[in-house]
Amino acid sequence: YWSIIQINMEIKIVVIGKLKEKIYQKRVQKYLQWISKDVKIEIVYLKDTNNKILTKMDKFKKNNFFSICLSENGIQMSSNAFSKFIFNNKEKLSFIIGGPDGHSSEILNEADYVLSFSKMTMPHEMATLVLIEQIYRALSIKKGSKYHRE
Amino acid sequence: YWSIIQINMEIKIVVIGKLKEKIYQKRVQKYLQWISKDVKIEIVYLKDTNNKILTKMDKFKKNNFFSICLSENGIQMSSNAFSKFIFNNKEKLSFIIGGPDGHSSEILNEADYVLSFSKMTMPHEMATLVLIEQIYRALSIKKGSKYHRE
Repeated sequence: YWSIIQINMEIKIVVIGKLKEKIYQKRVQKYLQWISKDVKIEIVYLKDTNNKILTKMDKFKKNNFFSICLSENGIQMSSNAFSKFIFNNKEKLSFIIGGPDGHSSEILNEADYVLSFSKMTMPHEMATLVLIEQIYRALSIKKGSKYHRE
Repeated sequence: YWSIIQINMEIKIVVIGKLKEKIYQKRVQKYLQWISKDVKIEIVYLKDTNNKILTKMDKFKKNNFFSICLSENGIQMSSNAFSKFIFNNKEKLSFIIGGPDGHSSEILNEADYVLSFSKMTMPHEMATLVLIEQIYRALSIKKGSKYHRE
């Protein structure tokens, strides 16, 4: 199986709080499975303590990951721009999705980038699903597959 | 059961194309059930033909519905603003979610409002889930329940 994606590319998703809803979990697993054919990807669940998240982000920094926090007030982009953002950026990316109360300003300040999907507030489980679908879409755009229609 | 919501309020959601994924259907049904305690709400699936949608929109207009089309290029608002938008608007609202290729410009021109959740392209099944969760959230904000956290 040949891929046009950088072979050293690696994505880690950190979700604060658990995915309690099985239906979301199932769908998230499906996308993970599809993405992992081209890109090393992993999802981690963390309990919602500020220090734990900051420690995790510090570890990411040391390991040369580019940390992207999700927040309603972050920068929005189209799916095409997101595809370029992912594949023209560093090879190692980490996405951090906040819990029910979102991210603290301390965490947002530590982030390399603050990304927004929507001005609207979504449950973090839904945000996880949206993120992972967008990563899959970004990959499809990069590969020129039919999944994304203009 | 007492509600602070206008008793004549009515929401119709038109989804172009089917919800093929059972997991989305299940979750959509759950939100519909919760919302319907306060607001008359109905979801209809339509095959993707421009004329059928235009006929439907015409019928909505005659029945005094305010037609809101969803599109990436529409107007975005926060969940709080969306709550005001819903409850300070007409009592009858219809939301129209496009199929895999989105709405034609003819349909967008017929709409009373073009609303956007995100600059990103979402599968229409996911957009349906996002919409219905936002309607439930809007209701929670209006009622002052704990579901939505600031």
